Order: sequence, then structure tokens, then C-alpha cells
Amino acid sequence: MKLYSKPLEKYSGFDSFQESFVAELDRFIDAFLDDRIRQASEQFMVDGYALLKEYCGRPGKRIRPLLVMLSYMGYGGRKKRMGDVLSVAASVELMHSFLLIQDDIIDRADSRRGGPSLHVAAEKDFSGISASSNSASDAALILADVVMSCALELAGSTAFGVKVMNRFWKVFSSTYELTAWGQIRDIMYSMPTTLDIDEDVPEQISRLKTAHYTIRSPLHMGYVLSGGSSEKEVGRIHDFGMNLGMAFQLRDDIIGVFGRQDETGKPVDSDLREGKYTLLVQYAYRLLDKNRKDRLEKMFCAEEKTEHEIEELRSLISTSGALQRARDDLARYTGVAERELQSLSVSQRCMEFLQEIVVMISRY
Amino acid sequence: MKLYSKPLEKYSGFDSFQESFVAELDRFIDAFLDDRIRQASEQFMVDGYALLKEYCGRPGKRIRPLLVMLSYMGYGGRKKRMGDVLSVAASVELMHSFLLIQDDIIDRADSRRGGPSLHVAAEKDFSGISASSNSASDAALILADVVMSCALELAGSTAFGVKVMNRFWKVFSSTYELTAWGQIRDIMYSMPTTLDIDEDVPEQISRLKTAHYTIRSPLHMGYVLSGGSSEKEVGRIHDFGMNLGMAFQLRDDIIGVFGRQDETGKPVDSDLREGKYTLLVQYAYRLLDKNRKDRLEKMFCAEEKTEHEIEELRSLISTSGALQRARDDLARYTGVAERELQSLSVSQRCMEFLQEIVVMISRY
Repeated sequence: MKLYSKPLEKYSGFDSFQESFVAELDRFIDAFLDDRIRQASEQFMVDGYALLKEYCGRPGKRIRPLLVMLSYMGYGGRKKRMGDVLSVAASVELMHSFLLIQDDIIDRADSRRGGPSLHVAAEKDFSGISASSNSASDAALILADVVMSCALELAGSTAFGVKVMNRFWKVFSSTYELTAWGQIRDIMYSMPTTLDIDEDVPEQISRLKTAHYTIRSPLHMGYVLSGGSSEKEVGRIHDFGMNLGMAFQLRDDIIGVFGRQDETGKPVDSDLREGKYTLLVQYAYRLLDKNRKDRLEKMFCAEEKTEHEIEELRSLISTSGALQRARDDLARYTGVAERELQSLSVSQRCMEFLQEIVVMISRY
Repeated sequence: MKLYSKPLEKYSGFDSFQESFVAELDRFIDAFLDDRIRQASEQFMVDGYALLKEYCGRPGKRIRPLLVMLSYMGYGGRKKRMGDVLSVAASVELMHSFLLIQDDIIDRADSRRGGPSLHVAAEKDFSGISASSNSASDAALILADVVMSCALELAGSTAFGVKVMNRFWKVFSSTYELTAWGQIRDIMYSMPTTLDIDEDVPEQISRLKTAHYTIRSPLHMGYVLSGGSSEKEVGRIHDFGMNLGMAFQLRDDIIGVFGRQDETGKPVDSDLREGKYTLLVQYAYRLLDKNRKDRLEKMFCAEEKTEHEIEELRSLISTSGALQRARDDLARYTGVAERELQSLSVSQRCMEFLQEIVVMISRY
């Protein structure tokens, strides 16, 4: 394996690093699943792996695996183990697919990453001869387990030493445990029957389901694989990652209501239609006067929403000041992240690249 | 950790080994989940871990983790690493819970292991304020991911060397990948709309979903952890495990139609009600004359079945000769397994214990 023969310093900039990494990662995952297709003993397995290959290969920023690699390189990880880090990065990306497949089944979402969600794509080959109208969706749920198994094989195939791997598996497992708790909380408050909720549920969900998962853990994994074991540095990664992660979710929430389809890979009104209880909705409910509060609740909590009602919901979120407040939060989180970034013991070049990611997230 | 201070030779017999192992394993898993409960930062996490603890602690034979341990000891694994093997055994048992939770959600099954299935048990605390009638079931699906994460932490916490762990993760991941394919095949043929099926689907499902999963892989894992790496021995484990595993599934199929509730931990008619396409059903369809074939198909493929129809289905399976044929298969598989057992390079005592398991499975 002769990828990443270039140190970070040799890339012309973050974009060129990202482009080169994403291409390499995608090739790696493609080749891995092609191997599975070649070795499959039954046609239905060939079909399944092909479906997963198409799904995992859809264009994306690959932010989580990218952060694993960037962190590893930035913390001075050995060049010799780059191939192993790529395996782990691919594992993280496949685990992402595992969670997205489950997520879409739960949300009954039809599209993802600019294509059909996996349970929709599975209808053609995986309904079988079952009378159950759920068979394709049930099969897709288990196709997620296939992806997870592939992810475990990849993460378990590296040549890192025992102590490094013990630390790694602890981070890896806790990442998916925290994410699962965030997802559970999300499920409990999706399509809520009221908006009169005391607890800071959206913030809790964002921390568990996004901040740990998308930013903190990937950085932490790269650090651990590079040989790092300082509790202090882990704490600094935590602080930076949680702030940037909260910003990431806020940006996602804003795009999910006010963005364009090409920014989300799914219908732009899906967050509102699915009744996703985000900070935007919580802020709006808290900021509005009694009459408009009731109007927001009535429309948001209704199972069916007309195009006109979606537009009115957008307008209420905007005129209530909730949108501005979310933007202020986003700026505040990225501001804190920017300061905390300076304290990380990563190379100068890695810091510059992370800085670009902060800027990327602060824009929406 | 001072468990398994006794070598296999010191146990009075298999029953006493099993009893002692199951007690130790259950204590270990209980303590692990108690730790999680203590450290949980939110009440809903406390509730979730408590639910999982009750679910995982329900009585069972713990055949898979038992085989991991028995194999490790039988292949002369070092006493020093017994605690690590117990971690792996617990991981295998938690992965079993992960799959059972998913299985019951897919089958809409209400009970498991003599109690409510997890998605039913989750209704009390995990419906949240969502208007979705599926929220508890969706949350249970993600509680399965929490169990999986715990399983990964346990398997990743051992002090085995890199090469052993590379081999281990390969077996571990392929176990769940094969099982997933079996489950997918099962879904595609559950509640079938016809019984006129050419392919040997029930046998395929049994191999993938049971034989690898329940017998072969646990033995293989124990061998790998003991330091074993002979491809020939792996081949012998494979042959023994697949035959015994097929017998295990046949026994399960027979009990699933003709057994008592205390043998299955769920309603005895659930296999027929859920339209589970087993070897018994395939045999019956192939053995019956045209009229009774159609009658079997009509009743079996109907979504709702009366108590009387369930009884008639049992009678058709029995009088067709399918039951006898399944019993013959079971005897044949255990006979082959018994011979193949002799070729394994395990200790004499381990062989005796495995022999007892073969006998246990051959009885129904």
C-alpha cells in the first residue's frame, strides 16, 4: 500500500488532502466489497453486497474517516501503519452506513445520499416470496448487520499492539454506545405529541448522536492509533470535538429546514415532515408568544403537513428569532472550537486543516 | 479473577462444569451491566441498562459462550488468560442478545426466554412522547446496538497478542456476517406465499443461521484464543461443528412444532403461526400427495391460523413422514458429529464433555 506516501505538508491545501483521501478510501471500500462479491457462494449474497457497495459508494464528505486519518497523521503516527489506519477509517465509514440504514428504516425515509434509502433499494431483490409487506425493510435491517460485520473485520485486521488496540476498542465501542443512546432519545421525542418539554432534549441528542460520533471520537481514535495515551490530550480533544460537533449539528439542523436538497442528499422538508425535535424547534417554541406557540405546536405535531404548513413552520422558526439564535450558537461553538484547537498537540499543518474544517462548518 | 481455577478434569461431570460456568458468566455480565447502570449519566440510560440486564440474565443454557470456554480449555489454553476468555464468552452471549432483540422485532414476537421480548418490555419506559406507535420497538432496536457496543468493548479488552486477535476478529466478524445472511434468507422465505420452492432454503438457513453461529464459530473462537492456528484443525472443527449445528437446528425445528413451552421459552405454536419455513415444512410438502400438499400450503401460507388449523398442520407434518425424516436426519447428523468429534485434538475430558453435548442435542 503506497497511499499517503505524502506527509500533510506536501498537500497544496486541505481540499487536495480531502480529495485524495476520499478517493483512496472509496477505492479501498469498493475493493473490499468487490472481494466479498467475488467470494459470495450464493446469488442473494452477491445481490446484497452489490447493493451495499452502491450505497456505501455514494458521494459524501467522509468527515468521520477523514478525521481519523487527519488526527493520526497530525499526532505523528508512523507512516508504516498508514494502511492499517485506512482500514480503521473504512471501518468507521462502514459503521456509519450501518447506522444510516437503521436510521432510515426507523424514520421511514425514502432517500439518502441522493439515492433511495437501503430498505427502498432492497425491495427489488429482497422481498423474497414472503407475504409480509415488511420483508425488504427487515432484510435491509439485517444488511446493516452485514456492513457492521465487515466493519469489525476491518478494524480487527490491524497490526497495532495490544495496548493500543485495547484503547482503540474502548473508544470504538463507546462511540456506538453513546450514539445509540442519542438515537434512542431522538426516537422518544420524534413526532412529539407536545412541544411543552422542560428538558434540554435537543442538546442532549446533539451531544450524544453527533458531537461524540462525528467529531470527538474520530479524532480520539486517530490519537489512540498514533500511540497517544495522555489523559490531558484526550480531554483537549474532547473539548474541541464536542464544541465543533455541536456546531456541526446546528448547521445540519439549519440546513435541514432552510437548506437546499443538494446540501442534504434528501428532501429539504424531511426534518419538519418527520417531526424531528431539534434546537430550532425548541427555540422557536420558547421564543414565540402564546398564540403563535400553539400554532407552531399544532402544525409541527400533526402527522401530515401540507406544503403551505411547512412554509409557515419555516416562517415561524425564522420570525421567532430561533433561526438567529441557532446561528449565534453555531458561531459561538465554532468560536470556542477555534480557540480550543490551538491547545491540541497536533502538527502545524494538521491544525491548519482542522481550522479549515471549523470554517467549513461555521458556514451554512 | 479466580474462576476456572479448576481444570476440566476436576469437575465431577459436564453438568457441574456447565452449572459453574453459567453462574460465573451470568455474574460477570450482571456486574458489567451494573457498572453501566452506576455510571449512566441520565435516567433513560439507567432504565435501558436495567432492561438489558434483566433480558440478558434470563435463564438459558448459554451454549455459545460455553463452547468458547470449553474449546479454549480443551485446546490447552493458558490458565492465565481465563479471565480474558470469559470476557470473550460474555461478548458472544451479548451478541446473541443483540440478534434475538432484532429477531423478535422482525417476527413481531411477544415473548422470549420465558419473558416479554425486549420491544414489548421497552413499551413502558421508551415510548417517550412520540406519536409513533413504533417508538418503543424502534428504541428496542437501538437498545440492541447498545448491547452490541458492550459486546465489542468486552471482546476488545483482552490481553491476547496481535496475531491471535487478528485471527479472532476474523472469526468473530464472519460469524455475524454469515448469521446475518441466514437471517436475510429466513426473512425472504418467512410467511411464504407458496410452498412450491425448488431450492434447499431451510438447509441453507440452518447452515448459516445456526450451524456456524451456534456450534462451529464458538469452538473456532476458543481454538484461536488458545493459540491454535492449524488450518487442518480448523477444518475438523468446521466439519464437527456444522454437523452438530445442523442437528441442533433440526431439534429446534421439531421442538418448535411438537415441543412444550418450557423447552422453547416462547409459545409452542409460534413457528407455525409466524410461518417459519423449516425443513419439517419442506419435507411435509414434498412427501404429501397432491390434495394434502395443497391443504398444507393453504393453511401454512394463511396469515391467520386457528388452533384447530395449527393442530391439523402438526398432524400433516407427522403423518406425511416429515417428522420421522427430520428425526432420521437428526440421528444421522449427530452420528457423523460423534465420529468427527474423535478426530479433534482436544483433551480427553473436553471430548467427553462435547460428547455429552452431542447426546443432549440428539435427544428431543
